[in-house]
Amino acid sequence: MTNQKKIAVVLSGCGVYDGAEIHEATLTMLAIAKQGASYTLFAPNTTQHHVINHLTGQEMPETRNVLVESARIARGQISDLKDYNPANFDAIIFPGGFGAAKNLSTFAFDGPNCTVNEDVTKAVKATAKAGKPIGALCIAPAVITRILSNVDVTIGDDPQTAKAIEKMGGKHIRTTDGEIVIDRNYRVVTTPCYMLDTTIDQIEIGARNVVKTILTMCQ
Amino acid sequence: MTNQKKIAVVLSGCGVYDGAEIHEATLTMLAIAKQGASYTLFAPNTTQHHVINHLTGQEMPETRNVLVESARIARGQISDLKDYNPANFDAIIFPGGFGAAKNLSTFAFDGPNCTVNEDVTKAVKATAKAGKPIGALCIAPAVITRILSNVDVTIGDDPQTAKAIEKMGGKHIRTTDGEIVIDRNYRVVTTPCYMLDTTIDQIEIGARNVVKTILTMCQ
Repeated sequence: MTNQKKIAVVLSGCGVYDGAEIHEATLTMLAIAKQGASYTLFAPNTTQHHVINHLTGQEMPETRNVLVESARIARGQISDLKDYNPANFDAIIFPGGFGAAKNLSTFAFDGPNCTVNEDVTKAVKATAKAGKPIGALCIAPAVITRILSNVDVTIGDDPQTAKAIEKMGGKHIRTTDGEIVIDRNYRVVTTPCYMLDTTIDQIEIGARNVVKTILTMCQ
Repeated sequence: MTNQKKIAVVLSGCGVYDGAEIHEATLTMLAIAKQGASYTLFAPNTTQHHVINHLTGQEMPETRNVLVESARIARGQISDLKDYNPANFDAIIFPGGFGAAKNLSTFAFDGPNCTVNEDVTKAVKATAKAGKPIGALCIAPAVITRILSNVDVTIGDDPQTAKAIEKMGGKHIRTTDGEIVIDRNYRVVTTPCYMLDTTIDQIEIGARNVVKTILTMCQ
């Protein structure tokens, strides 16, 4: 399959409260495979902001690495985001989870004034410059907005997050389950996923719609 | 939906090399939701056998709890397996990953002479006694065989594991991607998943076939 499209997927740990949302990450990979493309996983080689006990919601006195924990979702097949080069891929996708707002950026703590991990910034800017599509699920569109600023995105319907998006120079478009927003200028495709109080079958639909739209853009 | 079927799903941590295989767990949950049933997640409240760095494959000098790490896949909604009562469910499913062979049992180390976690043994015996279906993916059928003994299962085509199954009193039936084996006596449904060198879209098919068969048995 010489014409098989190659998509980079960027993880931010392993678990919704301190890393990548596991269902969103898995169902993005599934959508890519089912639509005949291939995925390559990346994560920044950096320390997690913190470790949350997902049973109690409490912080744990532990230190974990974003790349090492992301490797759990990747079954070991994952690379340092530093090594990402858009020349080798047709598109890049960021699943959500608090990892996007805590490890890829400081959005969870600093809102619209957040800083973004240097490797994430480089990856997004280089992909946009190459004119290749960028997908983002759940809270990850906030990170993309912080980097690109003037971009149309969705995080669903949370008023406070929508306000932060606008403050960073983006335009927020309200959506519900599985719906996507397309920014034709930057070729950014976003969907709310678990930013809404929803179910795993809706996550599959959102991820599938993002991947489908991105693959159409790649033709 | 008063007639909605309820399925218990038992996790064994979070990550293929020391816990539950994340894709198998997620796609089991997806299959249940898409087929109109509901899932409730459980895991034993016990210490993991060890912690593996999924990037390097090396053991890490850490201690993690099976229930706490499983809660990552469950987004916090998970219960101690001690609280599982087959009277409240229509079926039970065990996704795979080394967690089944290292945390739910000692199969990874002791093969056919392995011991099984007490709560797992109780759950499987009580479900079988109640005449309710039991599903198992990947290496998890080995654990079910250790408990029930005289049962037809599949773990794919690995000769050494197949031999261990036979030694525990089971009958191993060779299968490939997405195929299932049904034991009509105990109502056990198994599929190989990542026991084969396969892809994520095949895992979805295997999980879907197990759930579909189990729901048919529940009618």
